[in-house]
Amino acid sequence: MESKKLAAEKATESIADGMIIGLGTGSTAYYAIQKIGQRVQEGLAIQAIATSKQSEELAVSLGIPLIAASDIDYIDITIDGADEVDSRWNLIKGGGGALLREKIVASASKQLIIVVDESKVVAELGRFPLPVEIITFGFEITMRKLEKLGCQPILRQAGVKPYVTDNGNYIADCHIGSIPNAEELHSALQLIPGVVDNGLFIGMASQVIVGYMNGTAKQLEK
Amino acid sequence: MESKKLAAEKATESIADGMIIGLGTGSTAYYAIQKIGQRVQEGLAIQAIATSKQSEELAVSLGIPLIAASDIDYIDITIDGADEVDSRWNLIKGGGGALLREKIVASASKQLIIVVDESKVVAELGRFPLPVEIITFGFEITMRKLEKLGCQPILRQAGVKPYVTDNGNYIADCHIGSIPNAEELHSALQLIPGVVDNGLFIGMASQVIVGYMNGTAKQLEK
Repeated sequence: MESKKLAAEKATESIADGMIIGLGTGSTAYYAIQKIGQRVQEGLAIQAIATSKQSEELAVSLGIPLIAASDIDYIDITIDGADEVDSRWNLIKGGGGALLREKIVASASKQLIIVVDESKVVAELGRFPLPVEIITFGFEITMRKLEKLGCQPILRQAGVKPYVTDNGNYIADCHIGSIPNAEELHSALQLIPGVVDNGLFIGMASQVIVGYMNGTAKQLEK
Repeated sequence: MESKKLAAEKATESIADGMIIGLGTGSTAYYAIQKIGQRVQEGLAIQAIATSKQSEELAVSLGIPLIAASDIDYIDITIDGADEVDSRWNLIKGGGGALLREKIVASASKQLIIVVDESKVVAELGRFPLPVEIITFGFEITMRKLEKLGCQPILRQAGVKPYVTDNGNYIADCHIGSIPNAEELHSALQLIPGVVDNGLFIGMASQVIVGYMNGTAKQLEK
């Protein structure tokens, strides 16, 4: 079994009847949603909220009952992937383009369980280009501000056009190389007019499960 | 002459040939755009960038040449209104719903000239409900976070539906009453996932022109 799949299935173990579950986006979340779907078909009674149209469609196809954000006070457990995770469980997310919905759902979750394969575990964040979601109006102005922060922003493309998020915004992938102070960079980015959010998830993960090449999956020590 | 109109026209005096001008939104900006249009018809050679579809249409109707954000490095002068201004020239903007585009344009401007009538000058910001632009996805979650910050957020309506900004987002009007530390509140708001931007403009104005009931207009002392 692929180690990422094993880790994703392990992450679903703590899901129990009556819970509200946040469904992440991407290849790891795909495995988790598949497993949750299987358990729902076996009788598990949960309701879910999805972080992307893609995950929502998958959940619907598997018979997972969905609940609207308006009908919940909080989410019990959210399971999601990450593009990088460091030893303090800080994350870079957004390679799949769903960072903002993922962050909104994560911020309302009692537990955020992150599932990755071992290639995503890094000593320091920043080798993976940091996705920054930006408003389409004046995006060139916003990208110049990102440059001044020391990023090399590249507008994400979908074919010949800019990629557009589920929220109607663009994504600038910021090539930084090394992020010694993730919290400081996160705040600096959020203060730029035109930046909607960025892929740094600071202090949000409550558990990180890593799938290893040798076929095992275990929690990352903090 | 209405004092606001007088103040708006005074603000256009420093506009000169060759400049790139940011056009604000709202009733004060309306007067400024009218005056700029008149000067363009008399031969003034400028290019303009608008902060709303409404101001863009007005500019086009007056023959003011527009330039795309992609074609500029900076804006020379932006003239805009405000809902409140304090003695340090900090502002609340966004009553008209265009706060985000206004802030992006302001942030790229060498000079931001704010024009208000004297009723907008306050000792402390916060009596005017602070507009906060939020993502539609999970807006209920985001509004609960605003509540926890001590705001009383009310989703702005347009008839029976929520008001939607030019960027496709909602606006929560946050009733606060008094904002003793505008800079701190601004940062706290920007760090909430789902908040795109907020109506506090801190340290951005380079000049404030006030129109008085007695028919005069003059600069606000800092």
